[in-house]
Amino acid sequence: MKRRDFIAGLGVGAVATGLSGCKAEESLTQNNTSNSTQVFNWTMVTTWPPNFPVLGTGAAELAKNIEKMSNGRIKIKIYAAGELVPALEAFDAVSRGTADMAHSGAYYWKGKNPATQFFGALPFGMNAQETNGWMYYGGGLEIWQDIYAPFNIIPFPAGSTGTQMGGWFNKEINSVADLKGLKMRIPGLGGEVLSRAGGTPVNIPGGEIFNALQLGQIDACEWVGPYNDKAFGFHKAAKYYYSPGWHEPNATLEAIFNKESFNALPDDLKSIIELACQAMNMNMLSEYVTKNHQALQDLKSEGEVQFRSFPDEVLAVLKEKSIEVVDELVASNKDVARAYESYKKFQDGVKEWHKISEEQFYSSR
Amino acid sequence: MKRRDFIAGLGVGAVATGLSGCKAEESLTQNNTSNSTQVFNWTMVTTWPPNFPVLGTGAAELAKNIEKMSNGRIKIKIYAAGELVPALEAFDAVSRGTADMAHSGAYYWKGKNPATQFFGALPFGMNAQETNGWMYYGGGLEIWQDIYAPFNIIPFPAGSTGTQMGGWFNKEINSVADLKGLKMRIPGLGGEVLSRAGGTPVNIPGGEIFNALQLGQIDACEWVGPYNDKAFGFHKAAKYYYSPGWHEPNATLEAIFNKESFNALPDDLKSIIELACQAMNMNMLSEYVTKNHQALQDLKSEGEVQFRSFPDEVLAVLKEKSIEVVDELVASNKDVARAYESYKKFQDGVKEWHKISEEQFYSSR
Repeated sequence: MKRRDFIAGLGVGAVATGLSGCKAEESLTQNNTSNSTQVFNWTMVTTWPPNFPVLGTGAAELAKNIEKMSNGRIKIKIYAAGELVPALEAFDAVSRGTADMAHSGAYYWKGKNPATQFFGALPFGMNAQETNGWMYYGGGLEIWQDIYAPFNIIPFPAGSTGTQMGGWFNKEINSVADLKGLKMRIPGLGGEVLSRAGGTPVNIPGGEIFNALQLGQIDACEWVGPYNDKAFGFHKAAKYYYSPGWHEPNATLEAIFNKESFNALPDDLKSIIELACQAMNMNMLSEYVTKNHQALQDLKSEGEVQFRSFPDEVLAVLKEKSIEVVDELVASNKDVARAYESYKKFQDGVKEWHKISEEQFYSSR
Repeated sequence: MKRRDFIAGLGVGAVATGLSGCKAEESLTQNNTSNSTQVFNWTMVTTWPPNFPVLGTGAAELAKNIEKMSNGRIKIKIYAAGELVPALEAFDAVSRGTADMAHSGAYYWKGKNPATQFFGALPFGMNAQETNGWMYYGGGLEIWQDIYAPFNIIPFPAGSTGTQMGGWFNKEINSVADLKGLKMRIPGLGGEVLSRAGGTPVNIPGGEIFNALQLGQIDACEWVGPYNDKAFGFHKAAKYYYSPGWHEPNATLEAIFNKESFNALPDDLKSIIELACQAMNMNMLSEYVTKNHQALQDLKSEGEVQFRSFPDEVLAVLKEKSIEVVDELVASNKDVARAYESYKKFQDGVKEWHKISEEQFYSSR
């Protein structure tokens, strides 16, 4: 009767379920593997408005891919900026464990450590292809993970914008003198560089830029590239669209994970997370390359936008000021110095290579 | 007794195993998912020599990633070129089901369908970033999968070389006249183009190129880029290293799957395969970007190699002949026409975008 009691305790349904589980365990045991079935219910916050094209939708796709690959063993509930915490508190939320993960950009966290900017975007820095080389094979990701470790956070690259545009202007920039007093929405290091070149950087949230531009409160703004910019309607509030995006030759997007949440996962789910992020890095860049060129064609065919390139003289001054800004940062902080040394070495080398490969090819075709 | 017989039939060990399986099923059922535990023992063939750097090692890493993410539910045994089937029989092996998958390049299969070349490399075509945009967001992968479907094969991009080098030469190319009679190892469409420009393309396997070059049986060869080329020692058999790789602005590598093998997988494993390939596409390009620039630095520091760029006049003729070759292909086959129409539309659009983004940025820094 002892045995019968034991079975009664399980219940018939459980025994039936146990049978299929049993078969499962046998086939896996034969193959020397184990199989965890614990379900992890995770929370993800982002720094993007709800359904924000490419960045927000990419974050949602990342979550969906992780769920699919894990067969539902990781379930992720996503909160857009402001839904659970404000955009700029995503880092702290993951650090504290309020959220298990976030999708974001490392340059937002320069207040935590100025070195984070090397993992986001750097004026006159590396483009997407180069940055990703540095991340995965040049030691960049290792330094990044070291710098986030004291915050209890593990980062992975999880998206690239590619080279951005230089921004929307209501006055032409024909010389450095035209930058004097220019009120431009341009945050981060780019803003600091503009300031040293005589301009007045203004930092206002994405949702308010259009009105500020239309009302003449600012003379210019930068955002991302043709696809995101067109969706915000900047072409209806500014005359000139400038290139290139000297301040953001690429922006890397990050997926960041609370250390305890990540480490609680079995190894297979850790691999799924890591490779889902790497796949999203490829996927988002591919989406931007496609949608940016299509939006550019639309903007051209509408015929209202006047496309301009920054004069060489202006770019030379912006570059000089960029070097100045980065040099000062490097002198101020040992993490910046470590990140910069690695970044710079890679950039110098890859620049020589791309000069005779990508660049020569572009100009030959 | 009926119930006891039933349990006796399972054996005590199985009951104990069944219990943990039972818990597993419960936790998964609560979350509306199911969990397959069948193990798939797969065979992978490649077109690469054993441990061939980046291409062969990348294929091995792809297999390892799939195993890790699936927690051993897919196990992949890899055979390098010639170990199970010769390199150029990999496609047939997957088609027949002799192998479940292969890692390879689509241009090898032009004998199956000339349209496959659009998914490998095209002279004066798109670089890696552009090709990947086309693949994932421009309809390229869909066309590719349609073209492989009659062969019982499902392809995914699973690697990019980036822009290759123009090759090693023992004579300088100062004008189109210097191409006349030039015996060069250059296969595929590039070879056809060279032939129309007056040269003599020679198709010899990788392992025999060095000797042919050193013995003067050929005047020139192309292979991949600095990293793979240096490993083959071409700098010891040729004087000049030419850029750019007009014939292969990128080569996409493929992971191809036998349709029945792929379709037998549960959905989570299908997702794992698909995203492992996308991650490897990013990973391999990053590895090439890194190792190519480092090998270039080594070649430069050794001081023996003379770097040269093809004169504009030569590139213009090669481009003209490339268009001619592709136009003839398009006229000959409806699959080529379909692939080309999609490819060309994307290329024309993305070219305009990269002109004001990537290209302008490269020249500004």
